[in-house]
Order: sequence, then structure tokens, then C-alpha cells
Amino acid sequence: MSPVSFENIRNAGKRIRPYIHRTPVLTCATLDRITGASLYFKCENFQRAGAFKYRGACNAVFSLPNSKAELGVATHSSGNHAGALARAAAIRGIPAFVVMPENAPPVKVAAVQGYGAEITFCKPTLEARESALNAVVMETGATFIHPYDNPLVIAGQGTAALELITESGNLNIVMAPVGGGGLLSGTAISTRALLPGALLFGAEPEQADDAFRSFKGRVFVPSVDPNTMADGLLTSLGKLTFPLILRFVDDIFTVSEEGIKNAMMLIWERMKIVVEPSSAVPLAAILEHPEPFQDKRVGIVLSGGNADLNNLPWKGA
Amino acid sequence: MSPVSFENIRNAGKRIRPYIHRTPVLTCATLDRITGASLYFKCENFQRAGAFKYRGACNAVFSLPNSKAELGVATHSSGNHAGALARAAAIRGIPAFVVMPENAPPVKVAAVQGYGAEITFCKPTLEARESALNAVVMETGATFIHPYDNPLVIAGQGTAALELITESGNLNIVMAPVGGGGLLSGTAISTRALLPGALLFGAEPEQADDAFRSFKGRVFVPSVDPNTMADGLLTSLGKLTFPLILRFVDDIFTVSEEGIKNAMMLIWERMKIVVEPSSAVPLAAILEHPEPFQDKRVGIVLSGGNADLNNLPWKGA
Repeated sequence: MSPVSFENIRNAGKRIRPYIHRTPVLTCATLDRITGASLYFKCENFQRAGAFKYRGACNAVFSLPNSKAELGVATHSSGNHAGALARAAAIRGIPAFVVMPENAPPVKVAAVQGYGAEITFCKPTLEARESALNAVVMETGATFIHPYDNPLVIAGQGTAALELITESGNLNIVMAPVGGGGLLSGTAISTRALLPGALLFGAEPEQADDAFRSFKGRVFVPSVDPNTMADGLLTSLGKLTFPLILRFVDDIFTVSEEGIKNAMMLIWERMKIVVEPSSAVPLAAILEHPEPFQDKRVGIVLSGGNADLNNLPWKGA
Repeated sequence: MSPVSFENIRNAGKRIRPYIHRTPVLTCATLDRITGASLYFKCENFQRAGAFKYRGACNAVFSLPNSKAELGVATHSSGNHAGALARAAAIRGIPAFVVMPENAPPVKVAAVQGYGAEITFCKPTLEARESALNAVVMETGATFIHPYDNPLVIAGQGTAALELITESGNLNIVMAPVGGGGLLSGTAISTRALLPGALLFGAEPEQADDAFRSFKGRVFVPSVDPNTMADGLLTSLGKLTFPLILRFVDDIFTVSEEGIKNAMMLIWERMKIVVEPSSAVPLAAILEHPEPFQDKRVGIVLSGGNADLNNLPWKGA
């Protein structure tokens, strides 16, 4: 039995509706011409805290009973989940505790601090992160909210595809990038329920292809030394997300770093929107593997917009 | 009597509606907090051909009787007007002739060519541009469409503010950047008609402050050697636009280059949209002259999104 049902996603949608942005679905005639497909982009770059992560964080935060909520929530993350959880906690008016590696980019530290979270720094190893997190949870009684391997988080992430499909109608293909697999799992469950005939694809950087290899070999492969500009897609699949992806996803495509950069520039130049590299990975997959997409209606979740303008993957000036 | 009435703008709106994007009006809680105002951004960066210029070009192109239209339209421009006119002409299915200086950036030449216009190159002086344009008009019989000093163009540009005000309701202040003054003139006429109590402000780079000086001195001052990253705002006011601005505009604010860069980065980072430097000039004016905007509802026309990603005003990588 699936740990997350479509009913859970529908309920998540109702729970978080007052707190999230209903982000637009954009189309672009030029990108349709270039790809030979009809593309429907769900713009989670416009989501609060700048990424779809806010949906899952919000669903987890607002699902807690008051007695647990007042003790706060905790996580370890150097990315969008930390900011999203901090912001959701601030909106509920409860504490957020975030463990970050001491070498985390100052801009990300500032974002998490800006949302009012309490930060604990640790050595940049998985062991140090986990032991620092355990100490924080022991001390505060806060509830640990995993960035992706948590049924409430997965259900929250699935609300993006629920909205995308409700608005775009009959899509032939739905795509999302895959890092830890929370977004792809949630997207898959919504797509299977609403569009049983549609194909569901993941997209991943070649240089962080653990999900691709896990999916193809049907055996979990961890992410080891990933090296990609798509910094939202560095993590390994989880105990919940890997089986969901095996069960519901039709295929995973990998893309080159050059392809990610080009797709990102196309989205900025042609759609006039700011997306982070991870968001460009599905479009890069369509451009590098065009055949299955010809004349198809394709829904794509643009995962986030937290690009560092002073550290772009091209020579900006 | 005004050469352009609000009735002309309303008619322009009806004429161009099938061809333009009805662009969204976006708000941003963070920018409201930073400025102390409530800002309503009319996103002409999402307009076809990437700028508000498409509205005026479209109104001029679709106003021509068939007998004149079939001979085509012509202009001299190295900026957004050329692309906009070329695209509008392509949609009507008539020829477009564009005179460009031989040192025009290749990316802009490619854009105009991409819309199917026929390009004539000339020396980069005003005299050479005008004589090349006259020769093209003599030879082809095409109708010259001035980038801003043309009543149909001004009426078309005024439709952006018409939509902005219709959607945002009771604004206290409406702002637009000022280069040749077509956008500011059209914005002023719509604002005076729909919001008689609102203030109407222009915003201009300090280093291209001919409109500011013309407005303050009430005598036309040409733009001489302007030097600003806001490359859409280099031109002088026109014979039609200067009197309109004198009559309808309440004030013009100037801004520093550093202020334009900072405002542009804020729009990219916080709103997650791509705008060109000229679009950031009104927000820069609010940040550098905050007093009149406190607690006010302010409508701003974001003029365009044709930024060169390889030539940004900050160190991008």
C-alpha cells in the first residue's frame, strides 16, 4: 500500500490553500516551436520562499496538533527546504530549528535567518548533521520534518501537479526533476489519479544520476559525490520515495550540464522568468531526448527560482 | 487639443486585443515592505516581442488601410520598437523595413531578422539613419512608423496603463519610465481619464536626464551623449510627447546607475521575473526618493524584458 494516497494530496491542498500562492501555469510559443511539443509550466519559482518545497513544509507544519506544534519543527538542510520550513513555521507562529553545515553559502544562511529560524552550525558531514539534529530535537522537543522522506511532505509536493493538471486539462506527459524524490513522488501520485493514461517522467543531471541508476537497476543506489549546477538535486532517494518512483514513474531521463545551462537560459530569455538550475532539468531532458515529446501536451513543474544572481552558470557580464 | 484622447486609447485597446498578451499585474510582499508602499507591477516584460512597444506597433500596423498596409511599414531603431514593428507586421502579413546602425548589437539584429523584417544597415549617425529611412520609404512606399512621436503609437502604449488601472482599481500614483516619452504620454492620458485624483510620475536615469530637464525648465532639451545601462531610455522627447508630458505629468524623478542596478536585481531576486534595466527605473526612483510613496498604492509599468543575459550590469559569474 502506498504511504501517500491521492486523498492525502487533496487534503493537503485544502490544508495549505490559505498559506500558499496558487502559482500560474505559463506557456511559451517559442519553446513550443523549439521542442515540437506543447509545454505547460507550473511556476513554483513564484511560490512562497521561492520553491515548491513550501508546499510540503506547510502541509507538515499545519498538520501538527497544537501540543506538538508549540515545541517547534526541526530539519537539517542547506537548501530550499530549510527556508520553506522556517517560513511555514513563522506563519504558524512556532519555532523552527535548522541544522546547517558551517560552509553553507552565506546567502542561504541569511535567507533562513530572515525567516526567523534558529540555526545550529555543524561540520559538513552527514554524520555531523544527523547528530546535531538529534541533539536539537532532544533538547527542544521539536518535530523533525524530513526534506522529502515524509508522507506529509510528499503529499504537499503533490499539490503542485494537482493544480497543474486541474488547470491544463488533458496532458499526455507530466515531468518533474528528481533529487530526493519528494516532488516526483507527489507528482506521480496526482498524475496517476487524475490522468491514468499519461506518462510520468523524471529528469536528473547526468552528474547526479543516482535516481536514474536506482530506477533502471531497481536497486537503491546512493548519490556519491554528485557534481552538478542543479544544487537542488544532489540528494539520494529515500525509503519512501524510491518505492513510489519504482511503482509510478514510467522513465527517468538524464541531461548534461551544458544542457541544463542552455535550458535555463532559454527559460530566462524566452519566458522572462527567473528559475534555478534544477528547474531547467526537465526542459533540458526534452531538448536532449526530443523523440517521446513530439506533438505531445507536456506538463512540467518548474521547481524553484532561488538562483544566485552573482553566481550564474554562464558568464553574465 | 491633445493629439491623443482617451477615446483613442480605448479604441486602440479593442483593435489590438486579438494580437497582444493581456499581461499580468504582479505584487510582491517583500518589495512592499522595503518601499513602504503597495506596488502593482504591469508586466510588459511578458508582452509579445518582450516589451510594451508591441502595443503601439500593433495599433499602428492594424490601423493602416489595406491599400497602404500591403506596401509595408518602415522604421529606424536599434531597440525594442524595431522588433515589435517587425513582429506586428509579420502577424498582419505585410513587409517590415528596418534601418539599423551597422554597429547594432548582433543579438538585436538577429531578433529583428527572426521576425522576418528586411534590414538596411547605415552609419551610426542620426543623419545617416534618417536618409537611409527616407530612401527605403521612397523606394518601397512603406509607411514610416515613428517609435514614439506618432499618435497611434502613443495610443497603443496607453493601453498598458488602461489594463493596469482596470485591474488594480484605485491607485494613488502611476509611474512609467521615460525615454522618448511614448509610454509616459499614453500612461498619462489613461491615468488622467480613469483616476483624475492620482499623481502621474515619470522616472529617468540621471545620466540621460533630458526629459527631467525639459520638464523642469519647460523648454525642450535634447538628449546629448546619454550614458546609462537603461538602453531603452536614451532618446529625446518628441514634438508630440513633450507637450503631453508638460500637460499631464506631475513630476519626473531621476535615479543613479547604481540605483537602477540594485532595483533590477531586487525585481529578479524577489519577483523571479526577468526585466531589462529600463524597467527597473521607476522602482529605483521609489527607493531613492521614498517620501511621496509612503503608504500609497502605486501602479508601475515594467516596460520590457529584453535583457542580455551575457551582458548584465552586475558580475554574474
